[in-house]
Amino acid sequence: MADSYTPTPDDHFTFGLWTVGNRGRDPFGHEVRPPLDPVDAVHRLAELGAYGVNFHDDDLVPPGSSATEREGILKRFRRALDDTGMRVPMATTNLFSRPVFKEGAFTANDPAVRRFAIAKTLDAIELGAELGATTYVMWGGREGVEADAAKDVSAALDRYAEAVNICCAHARDRGYEMRFALEPKPNEPRGDLFLPTVGHALAFVGELEWPDMVGLNPEFAHETMSGLSFHHAVAQCLWHGKLFHIDLNAQRIGKFDQDFRFGSEGIRDAFYLVKLLEESGWDGMRHFDAHAYRTEDADGVWDFARGCMRTYLILRAAAQRFAADADIQEALRVAQADRLGEPSLPGGPTPEGIAGLRSDVAGYDEDALAGRGYGHERLDQLVTELLLGAR
Amino acid sequence: MADSYTPTPDDHFTFGLWTVGNRGRDPFGHEVRPPLDPVDAVHRLAELGAYGVNFHDDDLVPPGSSATEREGILKRFRRALDDTGMRVPMATTNLFSRPVFKEGAFTANDPAVRRFAIAKTLDAIELGAELGATTYVMWGGREGVEADAAKDVSAALDRYAEAVNICCAHARDRGYEMRFALEPKPNEPRGDLFLPTVGHALAFVGELEWPDMVGLNPEFAHETMSGLSFHHAVAQCLWHGKLFHIDLNAQRIGKFDQDFRFGSEGIRDAFYLVKLLEESGWDGMRHFDAHAYRTEDADGVWDFARGCMRTYLILRAAAQRFAADADIQEALRVAQADRLGEPSLPGGPTPEGIAGLRSDVAGYDEDALAGRGYGHERLDQLVTELLLGAR
Amino acid sequence: MADSYTPTPDDHFTFGLWTVGNRGRDPFGHEVRPPLDPVDAVHRLAELGAYGVNFHDDDLVPPGSSATEREGILKRFRRALDDTGMRVPMATTNLFSRPVFKEGAFTANDPAVRRFAIAKTLDAIELGAELGATTYVMWGGREGVEADAAKDVSAALDRYAEAVNICCAHARDRGYEMRFALEPKPNEPRGDLFLPTVGHALAFVGELEWPDMVGLNPEFAHETMSGLSFHHAVAQCLWHGKLFHIDLNAQRIGKFDQDFRFGSEGIRDAFYLVKLLEESGWDGMRHFDAHAYRTEDADGVWDFARGCMRTYLILRAAAQRFAADADIQEALRVAQADRLGEPSLPGGPTPEGIAGLRSDVAGYDEDALAGRGYGHERLDQLVTELLLGAR
Amino acid sequence: MADSYTPTPDDHFTFGLWTVGNRGRDPFGHEVRPPLDPVDAVHRLAELGAYGVNFHDDDLVPPGSSATEREGILKRFRRALDDTGMRVPMATTNLFSRPVFKEGAFTANDPAVRRFAIAKTLDAIELGAELGATTYVMWGGREGVEADAAKDVSAALDRYAEAVNICCAHARDRGYEMRFALEPKPNEPRGDLFLPTVGHALAFVGELEWPDMVGLNPEFAHETMSGLSFHHAVAQCLWHGKLFHIDLNAQRIGKFDQDFRFGSEGIRDAFYLVKLLEESGWDGMRHFDAHAYRTEDADGVWDFARGCMRTYLILRAAAQRFAADADIQEALRVAQADRLGEPSLPGGPTPEGIAGLRSDVAGYDEDALAGRGYGHERLDQLVTELLLGAR
Repeated sequence: MADSYTPTPDDHFTFGLWTVGNRGRDPFGHEVRPPLDPVDAVHRLAELGAYGVNFHDDDLVPPGSSATEREGILKRFRRALDDTGMRVPMATTNLFSRPVFKEGAFTANDPAVRRFAIAKTLDAIELGAELGATTYVMWGGREGVEADAAKDVSAALDRYAEAVNICCAHARDRGYEMRFALEPKPNEPRGDLFLPTVGHALAFVGELEWPDMVGLNPEFAHETMSGLSFHHAVAQCLWHGKLFHIDLNAQRIGKFDQDFRFGSEGIRDAFYLVKLLEESGWDGMRHFDAHAYRTEDADGVWDFARGCMRTYLILRAAAQRFAADADIQEALRVAQADRLGEPSLPGGPTPEGIAGLRSDVAGYDEDALAGRGYGHERLDQLVTELLLGAR
Repeated sequence: MADSYTPTPDDHFTFGLWTVGNRGRDPFGHEVRPPLDPVDAVHRLAELGAYGVNFHDDDLVPPGSSATEREGILKRFRRALDDTGMRVPMATTNLFSRPVFKEGAFTANDPAVRRFAIAKTLDAIELGAELGATTYVMWGGREGVEADAAKDVSAALDRYAEAVNICCAHARDRGYEMRFALEPKPNEPRGDLFLPTVGHALAFVGELEWPDMVGLNPEFAHETMSGLSFHHAVAQCLWHGKLFHIDLNAQRIGKFDQDFRFGSEGIRDAFYLVKLLEESGWDGMRHFDAHAYRTEDADGVWDFARGCMRTYLILRAAAQRFAADADIQEALRVAQADRLGEPSLPGGPTPEGIAGLRSDVAGYDEDALAGRGYGHERLDQLVTELLLGAR
Repeated sequence: MADSYTPTPDDHFTFGLWTVGNRGRDPFGHEVRPPLDPVDAVHRLAELGAYGVNFHDDDLVPPGSSATEREGILKRFRRALDDTGMRVPMATTNLFSRPVFKEGAFTANDPAVRRFAIAKTLDAIELGAELGATTYVMWGGREGVEADAAKDVSAALDRYAEAVNICCAHARDRGYEMRFALEPKPNEPRGDLFLPTVGHALAFVGELEWPDMVGLNPEFAHETMSGLSFHHAVAQCLWHGKLFHIDLNAQRIGKFDQDFRFGSEGIRDAFYLVKLLEESGWDGMRHFDAHAYRTEDADGVWDFARGCMRTYLILRAAAQRFAADADIQEALRVAQADRLGEPSLPGGPTPEGIAGLRSDVAGYDEDALAGRGYGHERLDQLVTELLLGAR
Repeated sequence: MADSYTPTPDDHFTFGLWTVGNRGRDPFGHEVRPPLDPVDAVHRLAELGAYGVNFHDDDLVPPGSSATEREGILKRFRRALDDTGMRVPMATTNLFSRPVFKEGAFTANDPAVRRFAIAKTLDAIELGAELGATTYVMWGGREGVEADAAKDVSAALDRYAEAVNICCAHARDRGYEMRFALEPKPNEPRGDLFLPTVGHALAFVGELEWPDMVGLNPEFAHETMSGLSFHHAVAQCLWHGKLFHIDLNAQRIGKFDQDFRFGSEGIRDAFYLVKLLEESGWDGMRHFDAHAYRTEDADGVWDFARGCMRTYLILRAAAQRFAADADIQEALRVAQADRLGEPSLPGGPTPEGIAGLRSDVAGYDEDALAGRGYGHERLDQLVTELLLGAR
C-alpha cells in the first residue's frame, strides 16, 4: 500500500549488505537470524524502493574464496543488480573483524599488519570499482588504543595518512573515478579511536597528499555517542565542501554503538539533518548504516528497512512544510535568522574598514541591543508542533 | 617548605585572573568569596612560583571604566608585574557575560551585536598587546544555539571566520607579534556550541585567511566533557603544528563544566598529557583554567593554585621515571611501539612500490601475524604502578 | 486563539515561581530579564490556563523580611490567588543559594549548618501550609561532595534521614496534611550528589521513620542527565506507590542541567511519560520545572510557558490515538505485550508449583521459542509515525 | 618475585571463569584467543594467589550436556578445586546468550520464555549449591527493551519480582544457605535495562517476599557507565545492609561496557572504593568481572589477572597510609569530617526538641557560619599526592 512516504529509487536510499544481513549477534548474545544471501538482499531492497546496496569486501566475497569462487559470486551478484536496476554507489573494507587486526590496521604497530591491511584495502577498492562504486569509505574500527603507552599518536596519524595516500595513489594509477570518505568514531571497539569526530577527520584531510580526493562519511550514531550535534557536524562538512557520503541511523548519547533504525531516537536532530541535506541540494546517497533489533526474525528486518526510509520521507515532508509555514517564517524574521548571512564588515578587513567599525560601535546603545528578545521559545515550539504533526 | 615539586617560573605555570579570582558563584548559588584584587593575585601567584597571569579584558579593566581609570589600573598592574617579574603571556576577551551577547557574539544574528563583539575584541587585543601578551585566546562561549531553527550553521561559520580574520588583519596592521588560539567547547552555556572539539576547530583554521596566525587552545575539561581523550586531542594539535596554548584543569565525562584542580580527576589522561607536552619539547605556557571548590574561603584558593602546579610536577617526574624504567621500556618493545614510526611503504606510493607491497603480502602468514600478543595488559599495569608510586 | 491544545485548570498544570521568574543568569552570564513580581506571575499563568504555582520560601518571601513584611507579601499573594482561582499545591525550601550551605545543608559536616537548614525548612513548611500546599518537595542541591575524603557517605545518609524524619515529625505535630517528595539529581552543583537517581531515593525512603509520608518528585532533566530512561523511572515510582509529584522539562544526556521547555528535547521519552501518567490515572500535578532560553525577553517567558503545556496536550492526544490505533494494537499482540501481565507460576512459588514448572519446561522446544519474531521494528515504527503526525 | 602486593587467598580475590576465559570477541571482531579449560583456569588462578572462581552454568557445563557428561565435568572440576584449595563462592545463570532470551528472560513477554528462564536458573542454583556457592548473582542482561511500546514496566517489575521470589522459595525448600545478589546495569545489550542502577535494585528488593535473602552485586563498570560514583553506590548498599557481592573492573563514563582491568581507569573512585570496603570490614569476596584486552594472547590473560589483584593491594596500602597520615587527618578535622556522625537533633524529633532547635537557630550568625572555609582543596590535594606516591 503506497502512500506519499513510499520510497522510490529517485530518493537515493541505500543500505549496506551488512545492515539487512546483520544476524543479531551482540557482545552478550549469539546470532538470532539465519544468514542472508546478498542476492536476496538486493531483490528485497529493490522491491522496497531502495536505490542501491553497499558492502565490505568480506560481506560479498567471503575471506579465503578462490579467484573462481570470487568470479562466480560477482557474476551472480551482478545479475541481481541488472535484474533490479540496483546500484553499488559505495564500497568499503572490513579491517576490524579478523584477529590479525586486533592491534590496529593502518595504524598497527607491526609494519607487516599495516601492509596486510593496505593490501586488503587495495583489493577491496578493485572489487568496488568492478561493481561501479565511486565512493570508498574508510572506517578505522581498530585504529585506536586502550593502553595509551603502547601507541604514539603522532606516529599513528603519520601511518594513517600514509595508508590513505597509498589508496589515493592506487586509485589515480588505475584511473578510477573514486573518492574516499573517512568515517570518524569516538570509541568502540577500541577504548579511544583516532579521528574520533567529524572535526578531527576534517582537519586530518588537510594534511593528505591529495586532499581533494578525500572527504567525510559522517555517521549519526558515531557523532551522537559523544553528545555532539550531528546536523551541526554535517553542516560543517558541507561548509568545507567535504560531505562525500553519509551514514544514517539512530543513537542515544553516551551509550554503546546502537545503530538503531533511522529516526527512532534523536528525532529532533534527525529532522534538522534531513532539512539540511535537502536544502543544501545534497545529491548523494542517503545510506542507512543500521540494523534490526535482536528481537526480530527475518521478516522484521524488512520492517526495519522500510521504516528507515519512511521516516526520512516523513521528515523531508516536514522540512517542506517548515519552509511554507508563515508563522515559522515570521518567527525566523523575529530571530533575525536571515541577517546572519550579512557580512559584519562588508568591505573586508581593511585598516579603514576596521577603524570605521570601531568608531561606529562607539555610538551603539548596548542596553538597547541587549534588551531585544529573539523569540526562540516561540520559534522552537512552532517547530516542535510541526514535527509532531500538530501544525 | 620546598620539595622537588615546588614550582619555579622556569616551569612556565600561568593562571587566569578569573581563576584565582573566582568567587564561587554557580548556577544554584551566590558568591562565597570576596573579590580578589588583580594586584594581590599577581603577588600571591608570584610567591607560589608561577610564571605569569592571563586575563579577560573585563577581569582587569571593569566595563565602563574611563580612559583615566584604565590608565590608573594598568599602571598599578604593571607595577605589580615589575615588582614580581610576572608576565602576561596571554589575553582574551569576555564575549559571554553581558546580556548583549545572549544570542551570540561573532555569530550573533544581529549584525550590530557582531560588530560590537568585534570592536570589544579589538580593544582587548590592544590591552593584551600593551601588557606584552603574544597569545590571544578566543573562546566563543555564546557562539551556539538551543533552538536550531534560528541559526544557519554555514552562515555562522562564515561569520566566525570573518571575525577571526578581522582580528588577524588588525594585529598585522598594528605589527603585533600575536598569535590567536581558538578554544573549542562542546556545550555550556549554549545547548550546542560551534567548533565543539579540537578537531572541529583545527579544520576551521584551514579555511581562514591567515591560517598560520591561528592555532588552538585545547582545554582538558572541554574535550573531556564529550568523553574524548584529551591527550589524543593535544597530540593531534601538535601533529598539525597548531598547539598555541593549553588550558589545564580536571573534569568528569558527561557533566557540567567543572574546571576542577588539575589532576584531581582523570589522573591517567593527565599523566599522558604531561608526558606528551614534556616529550614534545613544548616551550609554551602550562596555563591553569580552573577554580577552587565553592567550599573554600580565600585561603583555600591558594591551596588550589599550589595543588595544580604540584600535581603537574609530580606527573612530570613520573614521565621521567617512565622513560627510565627498564621493564616499561622492554614492554614497549614487546608492544612494538617503536615500529609505528617506520613507513609502511618506505619508497612512497609509487606504482612499483604498491605492486611490490601487494605481492609481498600475498606471502604473509595471517595466522602467525594474528597470533602474536602485544603485552598491553602488562605494559598498562606497569604504567599504573608507576603512576601510583608502586614502582 | 484556542485550539484543542489550549490548557485549562483541569489539566493540572503548575509552574514554579522560579521558572517563569528565571532571569537568565547562567555560569557564564549575567541576568538578562528584569525581576518578575510573583503576583504578576500568578495572573499571567492563570490567563494561560495553569492550575497553580509553587515556590521556594525565598522566591516568595525574600530572606531577611520582617514578620510584617512577610504578612504584607502573603496578603497580596493570597489576593492574587483568590482573584484568579490559582492554587499552591507544592512548596519547597531553598537550601542551595546562600553561602551558608556551601558545604551541604542536611548533610553539612558542621552540625550548626545542619540545624540552620532544618530550621529554615520547618519555617518554609509552615509557609507552604499557610498557602495550602499539600506536597513538600526536597531537593538536596548541596547534599554531595567534590573532595570525597571530606564526607562519609554512610553518616551523610544518616543525617539526611534524620532531617527528613524531623520534618515529618513536625508536620505530624502540627497536623498538616502534607506529604514529602524527594527530588533526586546525579550532580550539579556538587560533583556528586547523594540520592543521585530515582532508584537511590526510593531505596532511601524505605529506611525512614514514616516511610508512608515520603515519596518521590522525579525530574525529567535530572534522570536524563545520567542517560537513564525517565519514563522507566516514573514507572518504577508508580510501582512502589511513590510518585508524589513530578517535574517536567527537557534535557540532553550527559550535559549541564538544561531545564529546557518540556518536549523540546527527548520527544520520544516525553511521549511515553505522558502516556504512562495518563494511563496510570495520575491525578496529581503536571509541574514544569524549566525556564526560558537566555535569548528571550519578558514576552518570551510566556511563549515558553505556553509551549510546555501545549506539548503536553499534544502528546496526551497522541497517547489517545495510540490506544485507538488498530495497527498498533495488533502489533502489540504480535509482541505479546498483553501476556507480560500473566504470572509465570500462577499458583505461586510452592514446592509443587516449582516442581511442575521444571518438569513442564523439560518438554519445551527451545528452538521454536527462540525462532519467534516479536515485530518490535514494525511496532516502534508505527509509534514513530504516530508521534510525527503521519498516522 | 613476591613483593608486598602479591596476593594470597586471605585477600579473597575471585575471578569468573568467563573473565579469564574471555576469548576477545567483540561486536566488531571475532575471537582472538583459544578456549580456556576451566580446570586450567583454576590452577593458574590458584598459582597467582586467588581465593576462588565463580561461573555461569554454561561456563562450566556446556548447554546440551547429558547428565553423565555433567557428572564427568563436575568430578574433574572438583578435583581441581581440591588440588588447589580454590573455592566457588558464587554462581550465576547465563540468561542472555541464547536466542531464546532475545526478548527477555524473567521479563520476557512470552510466559513460556519466562518459565524456561526460571527453570534454567533453578538448575543453575543447584549446580552452584553442589559446588558450595553461597551467593547467587542475578544479572538481567536481557531484561529491558528498545521499543518501549512493547513492554509495560510495571508488569515487567512484577514478573521480575515473581522470578526472584520463586528462586528464593526454591533455595528455602532445599535448605540451601544461599543469598541472592542482584546486579544492576543501565543499558547494553538492551537499549534500557530494568533496575538500571544500584538504587533502583535496592528499592526493588524492598518489595520482594523474602527481602532478607536478596541484596546487591554492584559492578564498577555498570554504575560508572551512567556517570555515577561507584563508591557512593557501594556505600549506600552498605548503609542498607545490602552489599552481598561486588564486581570490580574499570570503565570510562558514557561508553560501551568496557570491563577493563581493575584500576586501569577511574583510579580515584577505585581508591575510595577499596578504602570503603576495607574500612567497613567487608569480609566477602573481591570479585573481578573483567577481561583482558583483545590485543592479548593467552599469556596476557594472566598479566591481566595479576594486575587486577596487585592494583587492589596497592590501593589498600594507600588507604592504610591515608589513615596514618597526620596531615590528612588534620585536614579532615578542618573539614569537620568527624562531626557528620553527630546527630543534628540529639534527643530525636520530639516537639520539644524541634522547638528548641528552632529557637537556638534564631540566634545563629549566618555570616559567620557561611564564612568558614573547609579546606577541601588542601585535603583533596593531599589525597592526590598520597595516591600518586608523592607522600
